[in-house]
Amino acid sequence: MTSITFRQAQPADLRAIIALLANDLLGRQREDPSSPPNPRYVDAFDAILADRNQLLAVATLDEAVIGTLQLSFIPGMARLGAWRGQIEAVRIAETHRSSGVGQQMFEWAIAQCKARGCDIVQLTTDKARPDAHRFYERLGFVGSHIGYKLML
Amino acid sequence: MTSITFRQAQPADLRAIIALLANDLLGRQREDPSSPPNPRYVDAFDAILADRNQLLAVATLDEAVIGTLQLSFIPGMARLGAWRGQIEAVRIAETHRSSGVGQQMFEWAIAQCKARGCDIVQLTTDKARPDAHRFYERLGFVGSHIGYKLML
Repeated sequence: MTSITFRQAQPADLRAIIALLANDLLGRQREDPSSPPNPRYVDAFDAILADRNQLLAVATLDEAVIGTLQLSFIPGMARLGAWRGQIEAVRIAETHRSSGVGQQMFEWAIAQCKARGCDIVQLTTDKARPDAHRFYERLGFVGSHIGYKLML
Repeated sequence: MTSITFRQAQPADLRAIIALLANDLLGRQREDPSSPPNPRYVDAFDAILADRNQLLAVATLDEAVIGTLQLSFIPGMARLGAWRGQIEAVRIAETHRSSGVGQQMFEWAIAQCKARGCDIVQLTTDKARPDAHRFYERLGFVGSHIGYKLML
């Protein structure tokens, strides 16, 4: 496990990230793993890179991408002007699940949030992901909120 | 109701926004309504204004601020590179609750998200706010997720 590293995603990681998003319980129905990448992913990747309050990250093992998540650093007025670190789109390669990669990736992500001065780390997870709930609760997250979505 | 307007917050609105955040079931315990404003709020306000993917908004009636919310426009890879509009820190002045201001403010906020090309509008709300849950569900939001927080 010692050779897993975490870093900001680079354009060369795009296909691996899409593959991780698509190879997922819910992602299967809503992502597009075709090659060359759907231009919507390319546009999204560029928008993330252009925003210094976004950090798209990958976990790599021997240069292969085995995990991804996105961090958004969000300034806000509430809670005495607290910055929030928000984690979205967490995926670990099927072959590396339940191996501690997720925990290491979260420890790295939480450290990034601290380094950026965040007072809160937040995320939402689909009610249809009970394994994820146990994982977040083990890390100390409290499921105090309901996450609402409205599709436009 | 016809004279309510919605616009981006300006520095002159800072005290009114803090007062709205503090005069709230949960805000009472965690905000600071003192004057001059706690410098943490001033820093947060500046950070929000400096980020073109943040929109701190106020609702005004006859020039008085009667509501606020924050919109974050978040680029992401998941769901075919969907942009998300995220709504945080929604507050309506006590004297204007249950009067339709909230619904008008949300209609305005959702229109901003559409104008920015978002495919999803999302928010989390504390499980301790049952009135809010009914409000969001009436607007068509689906409470499909659990919102986890970790205080740093």
